[in-house]
Amino acid sequence: MKIFVTGGTFDKEYNELTGQLFFKDTHIQEMLNLGRSRVPIEIRTLMMVDSLDMTEEDREIIAQNCLKSAEDQIIITHGTDTMVETAKVIAQKIKDKTIILTGAMIPYKFGSSDGLFNLGSAFAFAQSLPKGIYIAMNGRFFNYDNCRKNKKTGEFEEIK
Amino acid sequence: MKIFVTGGTFDKEYNELTGQLFFKDTHIQEMLNLGRSRVPIEIRTLMMVDSLDMTEEDREIIAQNCLKSAEDQIIITHGTDTMVETAKVIAQKIKDKTIILTGAMIPYKFGSSDGLFNLGSAFAFAQSLPKGIYIAMNGRFFNYDNCRKNKKTGEFEEIK
Amino acid sequence: MKIFVTGGTFDKEYNELTGQLFFKDTHIQEMLNLGRSRVPIEIRTLMMVDSLDMTEEDREIIAQNCLKSAEDQIIITHGTDTMVETAKVIAQKIKDKTIILTGAMIPYKFGSSDGLFNLGSAFAFAQSLPKGIYIAMNGRFFNYDNCRKNKKTGEFEEIK
Amino acid sequence: MKIFVTGGTFDKEYNELTGQLFFKDTHIQEMLNLGRSRVPIEIRTLMMVDSLDMTEEDREIIAQNCLKSAEDQIIITHGTDTMVETAKVIAQKIKDKTIILTGAMIPYKFGSSDGLFNLGSAFAFAQSLPKGIYIAMNGRFFNYDNCRKNKKTGEFEEIK
Repeated sequence: MKIFVTGGTFDKEYNELTGQLFFKDTHIQEMLNLGRSRVPIEIRTLMMVDSLDMTEEDREIIAQNCLKSAEDQIIITHGTDTMVETAKVIAQKIKDKTIILTGAMIPYKFGSSDGLFNLGSAFAFAQSLPKGIYIAMNGRFFNYDNCRKNKKTGEFEEIK
Repeated sequence: MKIFVTGGTFDKEYNELTGQLFFKDTHIQEMLNLGRSRVPIEIRTLMMVDSLDMTEEDREIIAQNCLKSAEDQIIITHGTDTMVETAKVIAQKIKDKTIILTGAMIPYKFGSSDGLFNLGSAFAFAQSLPKGIYIAMNGRFFNYDNCRKNKKTGEFEEIK
Repeated sequence: MKIFVTGGTFDKEYNELTGQLFFKDTHIQEMLNLGRSRVPIEIRTLMMVDSLDMTEEDREIIAQNCLKSAEDQIIITHGTDTMVETAKVIAQKIKDKTIILTGAMIPYKFGSSDGLFNLGSAFAFAQSLPKGIYIAMNGRFFNYDNCRKNKKTGEFEEIK
Repeated sequence: MKIFVTGGTFDKEYNELTGQLFFKDTHIQEMLNLGRSRVPIEIRTLMMVDSLDMTEEDREIIAQNCLKSAEDQIIITHGTDTMVETAKVIAQKIKDKTIILTGAMIPYKFGSSDGLFNLGSAFAFAQSLPKGIYIAMNGRFFNYDNCRKNKKTGEFEEIK
């Protein structure tokens, strides 16, 4: 399995000198150690950005990396705000892999994060869903072309 | 989805007056709130026992509850030591449901638990695996009749 | 003992919908429960502000509340950036009480906070130091007129 | 300042293979890093025992180390059950140092521990109380010859 890290709330940290949130390194490996994961994986950080700052070029980089990946089970950690946009770009290019985008509403380092639960579900969906591009959030999975983030509740929901 | 709680390390707590570990209430709902799960679920506590203390009668109770359950996606939280034994009892009686047994090596209340990761993966496997009885641990899923807990590493592994 | 809450990093929380830090309620009582404190106390929230936004009027309110307080052991939770300025305003008006200003570099809700350690030391200093106005940070106490926050390290140090 | 580590609930950890609590290394330095302490200290582990298993010989070792210590501000981390007994042994031999015994009801590694609060208060009491032997628990300090642990509540209280 391959994990591409792109940033998002997942990996944000608190800078105690400035009081600002910022990115340093990804916490994915630390989270997988905590979860005692024994799934063979390869983690690659593609970028560390807030998904509101993600450009079309960034999405292209993500899609190209999915394309080139030898593994056909891929997880992408991503900010929730534009997760669906990135999923659509990927879906235009890739049909024969199971790609799961996931994220978090609370940074992992803040203790009470949903990140570990989401990562666990993303791992499972990557191993068990048919080829396709999916969002894994709120314990559920969504087809990339049938969901949105509800900005009021912070939850993902079906569009129809 | 249905969740049957049977105890196990998952739900153990520390009694600060005696220094012993004990069971009080399950933390599943609290964990699902943390994970922001929006999967419709019904939680039922069947027992609160260490799986080393689980009797054949206990396993029968678990199997009967799975049988009677209207839902065909079922998660069972269970101590890891005899998780496979319980899975075998269930498998003898039920073929037409997706039943996932999961647990934890560290109690959820101890802060650095694998429980939230495991619960996330169990939720996902329950929604996406075909009918059958499975163990979800270490980020992976195992067929009930092809795995064991390695007592030295604390990890689940395939038998063959 | 009296505790006046004024905000500061101590009590900041993460708004998962906006990604911003904000103030809701103080966590002092929750922290004292965790610490199993049995010191009789009265907690009063005077304001909930970032200390960089604190006005002279705010400092006057704090000083007046210290003056009017029946207790002569007082703790003030306060943002670290202007903690010393507030201490000076209080010192001009009050000589006959032991007043301890304390704070945190990391919000209590973020899990890995220095807040609980600082609160424990503030409680102890309030009970054992002679009358005067002090800063309690980094496990130490400082006279209000002989310390500053080092903006590069985030630590308090003597001026001398 | 000197810190003598003797074990106690403070430093207990959970062995995930056996389900038992055990001692490995002390967490004092990790806790002081979290608290951003800048008090010059020297930590020395004398033993790692449950205080119910502590022998008179152990207490003698603790007292001798306090005697020989060049520092006259000393903190001893200790199980709460026999903390008072050890304090009495020390008090027979030492009059000219400020010695604070402290501990915890919940292990530091379990996330929701009172340990960090207690350690903060012990640090402050060691710097501000007159020479003598004290217990620092529940946010308070007690003279060694005037307190006991209430076994029902787990709290320390004055005797008379």
